[in-house]
Amino acid sequence: MKNLAKHLKRILGKEKVFTSPEDCLCYSYDGTFKTGVPGVVVRPSSTEEVAAVVKLASRERIPVVPRGAGTGLSGGAVPLEGSLVIDLTAMDRIVKIDPAEMLAVVEPGVITAHLHKTVENMGLFYPPDPSSANVSTIGGNIAECAGGPRGLKYGVTRDYVLGVQVVLASGEVIQCGGETVKNVCGYDLRGLFVGSEGTLGIITRANLRLLPKPQARQTIRADFKTIEDAAKTITAIIGAGVIPAALEIMDDVTIRCVENFLHIGLPLDVEAILLMEVDGPAVSLPGQVKTIAALCRQHGAARVKVAETEAEGAELWRARKAVSPAVVQVKPTKISEDATVPRSNVPAMIRGIKEIARKHDLVIAIFGHAGDGNLHPNLLIDKSNPEEMERAEAAIEEMFKLALSLGGTLSGEHGIGLLKAPFLEMEFGKAGVAVMRRIKETLDPLGILNPGKIFGGISS
Amino acid sequence: MKNLAKHLKRILGKEKVFTSPEDCLCYSYDGTFKTGVPGVVVRPSSTEEVAAVVKLASRERIPVVPRGAGTGLSGGAVPLEGSLVIDLTAMDRIVKIDPAEMLAVVEPGVITAHLHKTVENMGLFYPPDPSSANVSTIGGNIAECAGGPRGLKYGVTRDYVLGVQVVLASGEVIQCGGETVKNVCGYDLRGLFVGSEGTLGIITRANLRLLPKPQARQTIRADFKTIEDAAKTITAIIGAGVIPAALEIMDDVTIRCVENFLHIGLPLDVEAILLMEVDGPAVSLPGQVKTIAALCRQHGAARVKVAETEAEGAELWRARKAVSPAVVQVKPTKISEDATVPRSNVPAMIRGIKEIARKHDLVIAIFGHAGDGNLHPNLLIDKSNPEEMERAEAAIEEMFKLALSLGGTLSGEHGIGLLKAPFLEMEFGKAGVAVMRRIKETLDPLGILNPGKIFGGISS
Repeated sequence: MKNLAKHLKRILGKEKVFTSPEDCLCYSYDGTFKTGVPGVVVRPSSTEEVAAVVKLASRERIPVVPRGAGTGLSGGAVPLEGSLVIDLTAMDRIVKIDPAEMLAVVEPGVITAHLHKTVENMGLFYPPDPSSANVSTIGGNIAECAGGPRGLKYGVTRDYVLGVQVVLASGEVIQCGGETVKNVCGYDLRGLFVGSEGTLGIITRANLRLLPKPQARQTIRADFKTIEDAAKTITAIIGAGVIPAALEIMDDVTIRCVENFLHIGLPLDVEAILLMEVDGPAVSLPGQVKTIAALCRQHGAARVKVAETEAEGAELWRARKAVSPAVVQVKPTKISEDATVPRSNVPAMIRGIKEIARKHDLVIAIFGHAGDGNLHPNLLIDKSNPEEMERAEAAIEEMFKLALSLGGTLSGEHGIGLLKAPFLEMEFGKAGVAVMRRIKETLDPLGILNPGKIFGGISS
Repeated sequence: MKNLAKHLKRILGKEKVFTSPEDCLCYSYDGTFKTGVPGVVVRPSSTEEVAAVVKLASRERIPVVPRGAGTGLSGGAVPLEGSLVIDLTAMDRIVKIDPAEMLAVVEPGVITAHLHKTVENMGLFYPPDPSSANVSTIGGNIAECAGGPRGLKYGVTRDYVLGVQVVLASGEVIQCGGETVKNVCGYDLRGLFVGSEGTLGIITRANLRLLPKPQARQTIRADFKTIEDAAKTITAIIGAGVIPAALEIMDDVTIRCVENFLHIGLPLDVEAILLMEVDGPAVSLPGQVKTIAALCRQHGAARVKVAETEAEGAELWRARKAVSPAVVQVKPTKISEDATVPRSNVPAMIRGIKEIARKHDLVIAIFGHAGDGNLHPNLLIDKSNPEEMERAEAAIEEMFKLALSLGGTLSGEHGIGLLKAPFLEMEFGKAGVAVMRRIKETLDPLGILNPGKIFGGISS
């Protein structure tokens, strides 16, 4: 390791190489409860430097763990103990924004919210909006294929990546995709690298598709006595041809956590709150809002609030945005899951999760992107209590099984990482996982790229 | 081959196996000028039958060429001489359409336009609209990642495939992706199979994402004295935040061909016609139309026509829809290319193609989806004239180089197939193509799946 650090310092300069235990500890976590202390951390500032580091790691057979802001929720960026972490946050340039092409070219370390603001100031729009956007990086978003509330209408990170520059396990650099929306030249390697969690290559630049910024938006909140009423409202809205830019749900446990935290008068006698945002040309908003409000009432909403101003909209969103800080008041550890089901199965999923919570005597706050079936059951536990952790793990496995039995998936937007690796075969079967493994082996024959992630088998 | 046919008849029943020269000849073509006569053709009606056929082909090391309607424009479905063609048009069931989930589950042989009509009757919308939609199949569309005029606003086939069932080279069946918009479970194999032209597996079922059918649409035509004025108008429209559902261009050669064919009074003194369609909520249309018409005039349009009725809209579209039958009046063979450039390079691309046409003394009609930079230069030639074919081939290579030098791609929506295989490395370099090849080899180690396509090296 010492020898490796010397080599790395020769390549990068010593100010970009960190080996002290204090420094390495700072890179040992992500947004999960998993940890692993790397042996050395580098902070390159160019594709060439990343390539040189990977080439060296390949020669020395050192496991490499690429890392953005470390906000991931499946353990994708948790270092293998003693590994080489490549911190990409120094590569944080927005290389260009081209309004005529509706294109942004960025380095992986650009913070998502910074890109949002920059393009919005130019009348443009980068839709993917993971809740971590104020901290997370575009590189991390791409590596995990991050989603967010806008997924229902606008899709996920994958839908906005036109091209990526990738450093392969060999240290070679390739370009996948390009700068145009239409590109069917050979295999879609671009798509393969998106969501591959650093196990196939390291993304060092991305071409992102932008949209025009929606002219206007408006928020609506509706409170429902039962989960079923809320869920029927969701399918009715979409059935009416209105696709909200966001369609969020909060269950009774979540509502209570937020109310205890904020004291803003949330209703404690309802099973669900739906928070919806519509956007588009200003003239199209009144019609969308009217349809949604009518359908909420028709499906038994106890209360419907339509924000008439931006400030009122922000006030309605305040409850939803406070969910994460609110739930961690209950217990020190939160495990945020993201199993996703077809939207008409949202009530069955919520009822099932509540049953699982009862069975295992756990507090699970359920909220998330109900419009696209992407729920976030948050298990509120104390990781220092091994008995509770065991119950939580049993509950998570049951939730995964439930999601799959309802036609869903293990992960809507957090990725597989370390936490879900044991369950991959449950979704894809042996043959499906074997194909993924073969692709991994062919692109990373020495197994140096983020080993243990997605496929498991290596304890960190 | 005789023995193979006997085996196949045992698996499928003899009514699904064709070996006569007359039958085989019927499967020897696609939408290009390339041909190859298969040795045997099968027409399975289930995934299990496809799997059994592929398993047998794998055991016997027989090359397999999957095929939909054979309308492809890059040679992807042209059989290798003596190969086993799997005709998937008998698997033409729409398995389900679920309006609440905005999901269609289809077999690969469903004709694209049939899916369009079926979902539109239910108030839904499947955007990908290749010009061959009345004939082409969804399976073929997925295999080539077909586009169409709506690509600018709505994206391409890739953006609407949520999941695919695939028969691998081994005969194993896997499911990739699922039924939800959000799904990041392991590698995006779904995306890898889309556009893989039957070289990695055979798609036997697809889950397609639908949208609500746009409430209204309106067509605008504008005629421009110069290509540059037309191109500036395009970027101005998009810069104003208006994304038309279609933004088509026809150059002077195309206009003349169509006018000679239809006699509808197209202007013969302009360099370009832009045909634009906007869609969305009815209330949003007047604003979009007004912005577009104003920008056309501002950028020197000689004439702007706004269709006030559906019938007037159809009349404006008539010229564009007649392009293909019109251009083949000029010469018996047309080679339709689809090199794509960033939209602000459309004028440079058109000027460059015109220069190439002059240099090689060829008639090239240029039209296509200017809004997303996806042009269709159509070389109008006579394939029985080898000297002209040679000039055409030289011109095509120059067009590819031009597109790449302008930041574009060899193929926006037709795929690589046979015709563009020799040029793949020009776009991706040795390292990029090597990655694709390794994926091919790992998924099809015996090389039985549509050999020679994408990578070339085998003459059909």
